Amino acid sequence: MAAPSDGRHPEVATWVVRADKAVRYEVRMCRGLLDPVDTDLAEAGGSDAAGRRRFVVIDATVDRFFGDRIRAYFDWHNFDCTYHVVPAREHVKDLETATGIVRALDGFRIARRREPVIAIGGGVLLDLVGLVCSLYRRGTPFVRVPTTLIGIVDAGVGVKTGVNFNGNKNRLGTYFPADLTLLDRSFLATLGERHISNGLAEILKMALIRDGELFDVLEASGTHLLADRFQGQTSVSDRSADRVLQLAIDGMLRELQPNLWEQTLERSVDYGHTFSPTIEMRAMPELLHGEAVALDMAFTTVLAAHRGLVTAEQQDRIFALMRNLGLPTWHPLLTAEVLTEALEDATRHRDGRQRFPIPIGIGDVAFVDDVTVAEIEKAAAVLPGIATTAAESR
Amino acid sequence: MAAPSDGRHPEVATWVVRADKAVRYEVRMCRGLLDPVDTDLAEAGGSDAAGRRRFVVIDATVDRFFGDRIRAYFDWHNFDCTYHVVPAREHVKDLETATGIVRALDGFRIARRREPVIAIGGGVLLDLVGLVCSLYRRGTPFVRVPTTLIGIVDAGVGVKTGVNFNGNKNRLGTYFPADLTLLDRSFLATLGERHISNGLAEILKMALIRDGELFDVLEASGTHLLADRFQGQTSVSDRSADRVLQLAIDGMLRELQPNLWEQTLERSVDYGHTFSPTIEMRAMPELLHGEAVALDMAFTTVLAAHRGLVTAEQQDRIFALMRNLGLPTWHPLLTAEVLTEALEDATRHRDGRQRFPIPIGIGDVAFVDDVTVAEIEKAAAVLPGIATTAAESR
Ligand SMILES: NC(=O)c1ccc[n+]([C@@H]2O[C@H](COP(=O)([O-])OP(=O)(O)OC[C@H]3O[C@@H](n4cnc5c(N)ncnc54)[C@H](O)[C@@H]3O)[C@@H](O)[C@H]2O)c1
Ligand SMILES: NC(=O)c1ccc[n+]([C@@H]2O[C@H](COP(=O)([O-])OP(=O)(O)OC[C@H]3O[C@@H](n4cnc5c(N)ncnc54)[C@H](O)[C@@H]3O)[C@@H](O)[C@H]2O)c1
Repeated sequence: MAAPSDGRHPEVATWVVRADKAVRYEVRMCRGLLDPVDTDLAEAGGSDAAGRRRFVVIDATVDRFFGDRIRAYFDWHNFDCTYHVVPAREHVKDLETATGIVRALDGFRIARRREPVIAIGGGVLLDLVGLVCSLYRRGTPFVRVPTTLIGIVDAGVGVKTGVNFNGNKNRLGTYFPADLTLLDRSFLATLGERHISNGLAEILKMALIRDGELFDVLEASGTHLLADRFQGQTSVSDRSADRVLQLAIDGMLRELQPNLWEQTLERSVDYGHTFSPTIEMRAMPELLHGEAVALDMAFTTVLAAHRGLVTAEQQDRIFALMRNLGLPTWHPLLTAEVLTEALEDATRHRDGRQRFPIPIGIGDVAFVDDVTVAEIEKAAAVLPGIATTAAESR
Repeated sequence: MAAPSDGRHPEVATWVVRADKAVRYEVRMCRGLLDPVDTDLAEAGGSDAAGRRRFVVIDATVDRFFGDRIRAYFDWHNFDCTYHVVPAREHVKDLETATGIVRALDGFRIARRREPVIAIGGGVLLDLVGLVCSLYRRGTPFVRVPTTLIGIVDAGVGVKTGVNFNGNKNRLGTYFPADLTLLDRSFLATLGERHISNGLAEILKMALIRDGELFDVLEASGTHLLADRFQGQTSVSDRSADRVLQLAIDGMLRELQPNLWEQTLERSVDYGHTFSPTIEMRAMPELLHGEAVALDMAFTTVLAAHRGLVTAEQQDRIFALMRNLGLPTWHPLLTAEVLTEALEDATRHRDGRQRFPIPIGIGDVAFVDDVTVAEIEKAAAVLPGIATTAAESR
């Protein structure tokens, strides 16, 4: 702290306070997380066995499929748990739902740092619980167990929490890491195919912005992973399921770590997230998050192709893969008007500059500030035709 | 980031993400902050003159007294401002009021990092706006202008934001520093005497935990500062007003800086804040924050005296000073039952240990974990008598 003069007798009183906050968190891939003999979840938050209490928040659908096993697991490990089941859906990802969780947590009378909250569910549940934990007593530790593909490769591994507000996606939130995230893809067995596609959109994003190899693996095994829901029923598909998840998460964390608090607003991982927040909110509840991201990527690919940054052949491959992954490439909301408005909001979010992530071929990205309305109009005009061709040639 | 193996071909997939967040903020004492020629407020957030917009949140009472001057100031500096006036009171320091501010801010369409929100008011307003700014787009810069004594020496200089929830004081909040706090004690001219006393309680706390010299200055000039509302109408009182504020703020920042995120739960500044949150909430709206803190300190002084940590003479001086500063030393809520319950909640807040800050004489503090119900009963039984004696011998 820089206090003027000796600090006891300051002449001009100005203080500059400086401090560094060290953050550390772990993301771990597991198998058999709910097997009673497995200790990952039981030891999350310390292996101290005395007086173990946990506040466990579970997505309602997950509770339906896995609730018995979750309760059996914690019983087996002698935990005294309070279960709070939340019907987590995008259209109730708001302050009200968060407040309901706070109210239940307040009744639990948690010890401030020794009893991590356990969050089990998809991206909506994780974002909600993360926000609640960041606020409760100004920070209560929590552990994430993502149960959707979006949760496993994206919402569960970063530090962002949030709720929608006033029709704006994630308008309120915090940066608050879970101490630990435990990933077990066997949860995906009960997930609808559309939600697997949804997660594949974020994986495809990683491939497009930084990982040509991941793109190749997706081309080779994406259709199968989708049908198989990442369950790895053969040893080959087991390996490719692991490989895709590892590459996607590894890439994601390498992008996030140097810029955890978004000091830099040029973020590669924002690819597919310029137009999509507006589209997702406008279409709600029709489009899933990853579907909106896919639409954004499809549109941006065409825009990049018009600039000569993506070749016609690369554009074809991208559109073909999107279709194979079950992702939409066009939607009636993709009008020049909506897209222009979305870009304006993204520009405000990026502090007055577009900082627009634009793909360079497959596996690289650049940032531009000069996307014009004319360009948007042109790309929007041709996109329906390209989307249709891709669908037909599938 | 520690990725297993080379990160491209991880065998066991565990990632440990590490990052450091650097925080820097400034607290500056000013004079004539609202004089049009003064540039402190106009240049907060950069001296860039183009297209200057500001979202200004003002406490309703402050708006009544200073609203015209605030508007004239920003007009003079050619700002395009939106003023949002909030009747900020402890009993509406809640999520609902915060949400109202968010709604107004959302309408302002702020640029994410270039247009700091300006918060002008007491501790309640600053805590509310701080919370809103920490959440809005996961962090929007803001500038604080405290207008109460509590705001100037405490709420305005740290990093804590918050709202009450479910009858619990500051149950929800964040650690989120304002980039800049501008302190001008001329705001205190319109503040009721009781609110000056209220702030003096937090100043007295600083004296008791770390600064015997500050205690001496308060003994010598406290009564006058109270009557004069820190306006320094003589050159002597002007110097003592500056001196008391500088010592108090300097002490506060020296305590806060090494532990900005409360990694250590043994916090000297928690002195007077073990029983007071419960007492303040139970008595609401009867007791002000500083009054509840004063009651806590009076009670704890007696408890410390019973342990032989504070002498009878020191206890007398402390009680006499509290009375001279217009602070209560006893209240019917100070029963062994309420105090015991309050200590239990504080213990949860301190993660299962009391970590009870107990004074050692005047100017030092220690932490203990072994306060007993019997001790609380004994101190609670004698406190009314001591409080009465102090009042009579005033
Ligand atoms: N914080 C971040 O960094 C981040 C990153 C990406 C996405 N997100 C957010 O995540 C959300 C999208 O996540 P999502 O796609 O997981 O949505 P979601 O949480 O709504 O889950 C999708 C659906 O699947 C159900 N479900 C969850 N697990 C299941 C399972 N194992 N079996 C069967 N059904 C299951 C849910 O009940 C829900 O109906 C969006 O709100 C998005 O903003 C956040
Ligand atoms: N964040 C922190 O670190 C921190 C520290 C200490 C206290 N606090 C919080 O601060 C709050 C108490 O602050 P406070 O005492 O300033 O309360 P307050 O904000 O309620 O202000 C007290 C009263 O004075 C009025 N007022 C404000 N400025 C005035 C002026 N210049 N002239 C006339 N009237 C004026 C207000 O309208 C209000 O009625 C509590 O909620 C407490 O929890 C926070």
